[in-house]
Amino acid sequence: MPEQSPHTHGTPARVFADRHIGPSPAETEEMLKTVGHGSTAELMAAAVPESILTGPGRQAPLDLPEPAGEAEALAELRGLAARNQVTTSLIGRGYYGTHTPPVILRNIMENPAWYTAYTPYQPEISQGRLEALLNFQTVVSDLTGLPVSGASLLDESTAAAEAMTLARRATKAKSNVFVVDSDVFPQTLQVLRTRAEPLGIEVVVADLSKGLPEGEAFGVLAQYPTSSGEVRDPSAVIESAHERGALAVVAADILALTLMRSPGDLGADIAVGSTQRFGVPLGFGGPHAGYMAVGEKLRRQLPGRLVGVSVDNAGRPAYRLALQTREQHIRREKATSNICTAQVLLAVMAGMYAVHHGPDGLRAIARQVHTRTAALADALTERGFEIVHQGFFDTLRVRVPSSARVLEAALERGYNLLAADERTVGVSVDETTSEADLEQVLAAFGEADRSAAKHGPVVDGEADRIPDTLARRMDYLTHPVFNTHRSETAILRYMRRLSDRDLALDRTMIPLGSCTMKLNSTTEMEPVTWPEFGTLHPFVPLDQAEGSVEIIRDLEAWLAEVTGYDAVSLQPNAGSQGELAGLLAIRGYHRSRGEAHRDVCLIPSSAHGTNAASAVMAGMRVSVVACDEGGNVDLDDLAAKTEKHADDLAAIMVTYPSTHGVFEGTITEVCRMVHEAGGQVYIDGANFNALLGWAKPGEFGADVSHLNLHKTFCIPHGGGGPGVGPVAVRSHLAGFLPNHPSQPDAGPHTGVGPVSAAPFGSAGILPISWAYVRMMGEEGLRSATEIAVLSANYLAKRLEPYFPVLYTGADGLVAHECIIDLRPLQKETGVSNEDVSKRLMDYGFHAPTMSFPVNGTLMVEPTESEDLAELERFVQAMVEIRHEIDKVASGEWDREDNPLVNAPHTAEMVTAEAWEHGYSRSEAAYPLPSLRQDKYWPPVGRIDQAYGDRNLVCSCPPPEAFEI
Amino acid sequence: MPEQSPHTHGTPARVFADRHIGPSPAETEEMLKTVGHGSTAELMAAAVPESILTGPGRQAPLDLPEPAGEAEALAELRGLAARNQVTTSLIGRGYYGTHTPPVILRNIMENPAWYTAYTPYQPEISQGRLEALLNFQTVVSDLTGLPVSGASLLDESTAAAEAMTLARRATKAKSNVFVVDSDVFPQTLQVLRTRAEPLGIEVVVADLSKGLPEGEAFGVLAQYPTSSGEVRDPSAVIESAHERGALAVVAADILALTLMRSPGDLGADIAVGSTQRFGVPLGFGGPHAGYMAVGEKLRRQLPGRLVGVSVDNAGRPAYRLALQTREQHIRREKATSNICTAQVLLAVMAGMYAVHHGPDGLRAIARQVHTRTAALADALTERGFEIVHQGFFDTLRVRVPSSARVLEAALERGYNLLAADERTVGVSVDETTSEADLEQVLAAFGEADRSAAKHGPVVDGEADRIPDTLARRMDYLTHPVFNTHRSETAILRYMRRLSDRDLALDRTMIPLGSCTMKLNSTTEMEPVTWPEFGTLHPFVPLDQAEGSVEIIRDLEAWLAEVTGYDAVSLQPNAGSQGELAGLLAIRGYHRSRGEAHRDVCLIPSSAHGTNAASAVMAGMRVSVVACDEGGNVDLDDLAAKTEKHADDLAAIMVTYPSTHGVFEGTITEVCRMVHEAGGQVYIDGANFNALLGWAKPGEFGADVSHLNLHKTFCIPHGGGGPGVGPVAVRSHLAGFLPNHPSQPDAGPHTGVGPVSAAPFGSAGILPISWAYVRMMGEEGLRSATEIAVLSANYLAKRLEPYFPVLYTGADGLVAHECIIDLRPLQKETGVSNEDVSKRLMDYGFHAPTMSFPVNGTLMVEPTESEDLAELERFVQAMVEIRHEIDKVASGEWDREDNPLVNAPHTAEMVTAEAWEHGYSRSEAAYPLPSLRQDKYWPPVGRIDQAYGDRNLVCSCPPPEAFEI
Repeated sequence: MPEQSPHTHGTPARVFADRHIGPSPAETEEMLKTVGHGSTAELMAAAVPESILTGPGRQAPLDLPEPAGEAEALAELRGLAARNQVTTSLIGRGYYGTHTPPVILRNIMENPAWYTAYTPYQPEISQGRLEALLNFQTVVSDLTGLPVSGASLLDESTAAAEAMTLARRATKAKSNVFVVDSDVFPQTLQVLRTRAEPLGIEVVVADLSKGLPEGEAFGVLAQYPTSSGEVRDPSAVIESAHERGALAVVAADILALTLMRSPGDLGADIAVGSTQRFGVPLGFGGPHAGYMAVGEKLRRQLPGRLVGVSVDNAGRPAYRLALQTREQHIRREKATSNICTAQVLLAVMAGMYAVHHGPDGLRAIARQVHTRTAALADALTERGFEIVHQGFFDTLRVRVPSSARVLEAALERGYNLLAADERTVGVSVDETTSEADLEQVLAAFGEADRSAAKHGPVVDGEADRIPDTLARRMDYLTHPVFNTHRSETAILRYMRRLSDRDLALDRTMIPLGSCTMKLNSTTEMEPVTWPEFGTLHPFVPLDQAEGSVEIIRDLEAWLAEVTGYDAVSLQPNAGSQGELAGLLAIRGYHRSRGEAHRDVCLIPSSAHGTNAASAVMAGMRVSVVACDEGGNVDLDDLAAKTEKHADDLAAIMVTYPSTHGVFEGTITEVCRMVHEAGGQVYIDGANFNALLGWAKPGEFGADVSHLNLHKTFCIPHGGGGPGVGPVAVRSHLAGFLPNHPSQPDAGPHTGVGPVSAAPFGSAGILPISWAYVRMMGEEGLRSATEIAVLSANYLAKRLEPYFPVLYTGADGLVAHECIIDLRPLQKETGVSNEDVSKRLMDYGFHAPTMSFPVNGTLMVEPTESEDLAELERFVQAMVEIRHEIDKVASGEWDREDNPLVNAPHTAEMVTAEAWEHGYSRSEAAYPLPSLRQDKYWPPVGRIDQAYGDRNLVCSCPPPEAFEI
Repeated sequence: MPEQSPHTHGTPARVFADRHIGPSPAETEEMLKTVGHGSTAELMAAAVPESILTGPGRQAPLDLPEPAGEAEALAELRGLAARNQVTTSLIGRGYYGTHTPPVILRNIMENPAWYTAYTPYQPEISQGRLEALLNFQTVVSDLTGLPVSGASLLDESTAAAEAMTLARRATKAKSNVFVVDSDVFPQTLQVLRTRAEPLGIEVVVADLSKGLPEGEAFGVLAQYPTSSGEVRDPSAVIESAHERGALAVVAADILALTLMRSPGDLGADIAVGSTQRFGVPLGFGGPHAGYMAVGEKLRRQLPGRLVGVSVDNAGRPAYRLALQTREQHIRREKATSNICTAQVLLAVMAGMYAVHHGPDGLRAIARQVHTRTAALADALTERGFEIVHQGFFDTLRVRVPSSARVLEAALERGYNLLAADERTVGVSVDETTSEADLEQVLAAFGEADRSAAKHGPVVDGEADRIPDTLARRMDYLTHPVFNTHRSETAILRYMRRLSDRDLALDRTMIPLGSCTMKLNSTTEMEPVTWPEFGTLHPFVPLDQAEGSVEIIRDLEAWLAEVTGYDAVSLQPNAGSQGELAGLLAIRGYHRSRGEAHRDVCLIPSSAHGTNAASAVMAGMRVSVVACDEGGNVDLDDLAAKTEKHADDLAAIMVTYPSTHGVFEGTITEVCRMVHEAGGQVYIDGANFNALLGWAKPGEFGADVSHLNLHKTFCIPHGGGGPGVGPVAVRSHLAGFLPNHPSQPDAGPHTGVGPVSAAPFGSAGILPISWAYVRMMGEEGLRSATEIAVLSANYLAKRLEPYFPVLYTGADGLVAHECIIDLRPLQKETGVSNEDVSKRLMDYGFHAPTMSFPVNGTLMVEPTESEDLAELERFVQAMVEIRHEIDKVASGEWDREDNPLVNAPHTAEMVTAEAWEHGYSRSEAAYPLPSLRQDKYWPPVGRIDQAYGDRNLVCSCPPPEAFEI
């Protein structure tokens, strides 16, 4: 009986890599035959330029632990989890304990239908998550009192930074001063400073309780309630700001707003904050959904994504991303925000939390938090302690003889408090704080006045320490969606209905070029929602987070190993933040050498728009380098540019393999030329899935890269976030990585400051990437790369007879994705790449990337996780679509009425009583027989994008809108 | 600011009861108005007979802990979980460690689309789980070498008992002897004895290694490999059995069968066993899927459910339950098995485990287990220990000086071994056993021969201790389904596709009369898959299971409190087993009083068929009591029967409220009459959801009841199992509850023996019911009952103008369900209750219970968990259907061609090119406008039941069958 190579641990039948990688060995053989290579190694050797192959046998050796089986990895993670101390953190500062309703935890956060979905760029198959995001926007908009809310930002601090730059561009003020209250969250102040400095913005810190300081300013930021918990009316400051032509930004606590007047009501122009405490686990700092809301006048300036309501071709209300022309990937170097993702999964959760509780429930939660805070304040006062602020919502500052002693006593009882200073302790009460907790906290304080009576905390249900002038009188969440799904049964079905409208990885491949929609395995996902990882506050002492810290250190080391760099920071919580951090490191490096004048960043014309936007944010001037007709960097132009900028060249940013999906043979030459001109080389790691285990940017000439853990390292896209974008650098840049004011171990003391609110960014989801590397090991990771490249080349070869492949590299090979060119067919038939994309929905597919990086094309990235059957299903669909286009070309089908231009077809369309099309119903719905089983029906037809932008609606439409 | 009555713990906004109960207070008011009562209490007082109301204020007081919030309940459960010791159990005896593939755990066991589904009696909307069950049947059939496998039984031991009774009826032998090998699992032997005794079957235990003992027998059972691990060829014994006209049953290890010749190959007639080790957590004993497979000749005798392949009205292959006429609920008192459920959720998991691993993977797992067992055997031998059997698969018996000492040393290292006797230790290796584990186990043995060399266990990949004559040569799992979904991506999509074909509670109400499809809340479900509960072997010392034992003790106490009984056994792992246990208690009681001759069980004609079957199994003779035209027990006939059976009356079994959905006013009179005649009163607790908190059977006259935790106490139906059917008795019967040979604490030492394989039955899912009671508390539970009764009466009132309600009780009220009578309309129009049921699918509903308890009717039970919107959605559908029937009546629609008789309509039907029906496409698909959004499309049309029974196919059909 033949042995199946059992492993020491776990299930012997198949190692995890075999589960992660789609094609079986036999399928791989078949695909290799089609591509015309004898082995995947041979294919790689042919595709990847010799010059970047460094290892023996030419692959890059990876010094990683032997791969663990799934059970073994879970056991190790359980061991790491056990090394985190589950304490109760009443630290506050923007992070609060919360109860994630289990029905939301299980059916959204732990449900692949939600977490494997992509960004809703194809709105017809994204109606579920778009509605969920519209709920989120409505929550933010209602509570902040500002009519236009985005679909989430990365965290509160970066949202504040975005507000700062928004204010600057919106006011067009000459002043470069942004005034910040001294009582804002420390991490927000530091992120503002990190972001302000390269832009020449002067951050002026002032005690706004004394009014706006004299002088010009383009904006002002107040925290509401303040970081120290004071509930203070910001309206006078807002008025002063307006008088001086400045915009007023209020960073507000989303739960407090259920009881307090809204920023909009108080005159603010912009509100920012976090929705973490609406049911999103702390997760040692993230991911959580930050928010921003603005008044009507600023809506076209709003950074990040905005969901709006439009109509489809049958006039049904339909959701989609609005005003996309604002986005950086469209605006490129004109953009002044590099935000290109959101925290969709977390925003969906926060929105559902509001759906679950409704306005009355939220108010009751806030009242409970508030009355318990008041009870604690009273009991402390009675014991002789001074409470600093008399007006508060959930946070107290208490004067004590020694903060350290109180914190120690609290910790002995299992509580973390905040040492605001040596003699002031902070306590923030939250939804999870029970009366028993209050007693424990009280006991930790001891007593200041031994003569006083010693009652425990007594909760008075009528207590109210919010000044009456700030008490909220305006309604919120009056829309039926927040007042309907009150039972668990009802909300469960609502969530299911929404998710059923969408196509995610649990139903089909999502062949998105540049987005690497690979398997997000359950084993990787499971630990994320374990309480030991979920309940950790980002500012706990690190000895309480030993397990999480080990995951971070392991991952830093492993990412350094696989990229060939010397140091890694996991703080950036999106690729865009990683880019910024990388460029700031370059900036810091030049400045440390007295070369502050080096500020030109070369960017090839093929680059992702984010690159240019990041360069601008890092205080650099962008100079575009031309590409040749093969899509490669034009070395002549590069030579000209490096010569021109010999004195002020800061860096070049290139994506490798290129955004065109090819391994450029000249990459080492590019690196050499830039280095010789005194510049640094930034390689955008978006396409690292094509290199891992074969080449290391840190070894073939680059100085810095960011990685997208949500691309190469299996963090799910969550419908458009969370992302994680660590930055990796060579040693000379290591001193310029991000650090954090609240956590010395988060980065070098010489660092450039924080780029994210939390010391370790979205630490809560790092177990995903840890588990991936741990289970794949060297061979598994390398093999994934090889199969990703093989699959892309297989698709290119299979599709080539039907659609031209636009760019190829050596030997006619592509890297891990390929661009197919629809322009010739469009010219001939009028059928566009958009028509093909929409038509693919009728075939049950999510469309490839449309018109990036080249207009009129589709970029296809199959990844290594799709098996041959799924690749072939895609090929069959594309071949059939080609036949359909041919029918248009031949005149058999009308140019204005064919299944392509009418796609996608809803069930209602195909079952209409009258059928007046020049093609049949079954050609519309079932162009391939296999579609007859388990057919996916798009919930809406083609959406009218322009209508929605003309008639902008960005919160939930009334139910009547859906009446038929 | 108004206060929302915050609670001390958890989220203040709403207590759990408000999440569990569908209608809001305002909706409740509205419903009360329709029903015509001022409050739910008033309604209950009107509906429930005065005579059974015992408490002050007439409700029954419940002495239960104050309700906990969801977070608090989870925290308490985490505390209980922490009191279980997570050790590694190598005890064997039918229970083995296994790795549940995380992708299966999350996407089946933790997925409401699977766990909230109902039994697939409506096959058109159950195609997904039916396919999954067909996979299971194929696995069992292939591995056992017997062509017809059922869709699972409750556990291995009851499967063996079912095999015993099957053998008896199939052979029609005069002999009453069933021979059982002395080396079978002890719990199996004991369950056989419990089940044999009342039936007059003599269980003869013999050492079958010496051949079949002399004498007649109708059947013989051998374990393969034996309980002590010996791999022994049973074919000689099988041959002897056949020579004597007896049937041969082989209880086989499902994993061993991947390496060993199959029972079918060896000549066995019946194979039984457990599929637990195919990825189903141990769960302290269950639930797991038992299996039974038989040869062609016995297929119509197979107990339990059988999935078969038929065709739909368009000729597509379609799955459904086959040969349903065998089932007890059809055969009633003719049945000789009372099995009316399966372990569907667990069978689906075991089947998916085989899909996930495929034949090669399963073989590799088995080989790993085997070679590691061999390595341990060799190392022990080398150290001077005697290994009892030389041929083994995974289980060793080792002679030692003191078993106790070895067990103690093992436990110190975190391992549980088996003390087979004082000087023999058992070790069973499983899929999770690593080489490091082997070393630890070896170390626990110490050394018998100090002079011997001391190597560790060395795994020889070629080792083979299975006698060559028993080595398997036949292929298995060659069907593509077991050879296609090898990557996680592929199996994830396969599971999603299957679940999407089905309608479960996560999409619609399932208004099944008598089945109480209420909310299975996430908080209740979460703990089930925590490792502390999942990894517990049923035979661990109880001090390792303190948390689970406390849950069991709490639940026993709470169930006793709410029912008014004195003692509860949680061992029965289905309602049918609870019935048997209850009747065995009555039997034991009579016998203990010298009244063994009392053996007549009165059963009203309206009873569920299971009642009669259980009575037969408990050795009783059934005498049917007539019902009057109101559906109530005919007291005159009861008087006649009690008089007739004054000397031999054992019991009456009545369901209360009745299967007709009414509170019979005469119930206390019934109890009195039976007691006076010397009989005991058994109240079937299937409808306890209508009584809880208002009346207690143990106080109003009954002696024993079983409860269905999967009805009243929120254990999900899982697509047709798991069930849990605890039995509750008054004190005089307490000594006759089930007990267990391997666990003295599982029941009274005077007990009737085990009715399930595991001491505490399906202990792994008891946290669900524990959490339900813990979070609802007295008021919550009572309120649930009231709303359940209100909802049923609301539906009755709303539907009455359109469909007559068949039975009502006092004040024209129903209990928690109502029967609507379709017979008059059928007579007039030909439209049957089946047509209405199928048509409801077009409206997105699961049909009510069809033709039970009265042919031609539908029984509707809304439960308390549906809100008014969902109740109204159902009403609207039924009203519209009535209009449709009217169109048939008026001749507007043809009797042979209308949307009712053609229902359900698949998307393919409605999108067909030609439409030749007398009604429109949109009348077919969208009879109500609300259906246009989120339409559920049945995957197949009306299924031809007769075709499937004529052409019985009970394993996976070839893919070609699905070609279009």
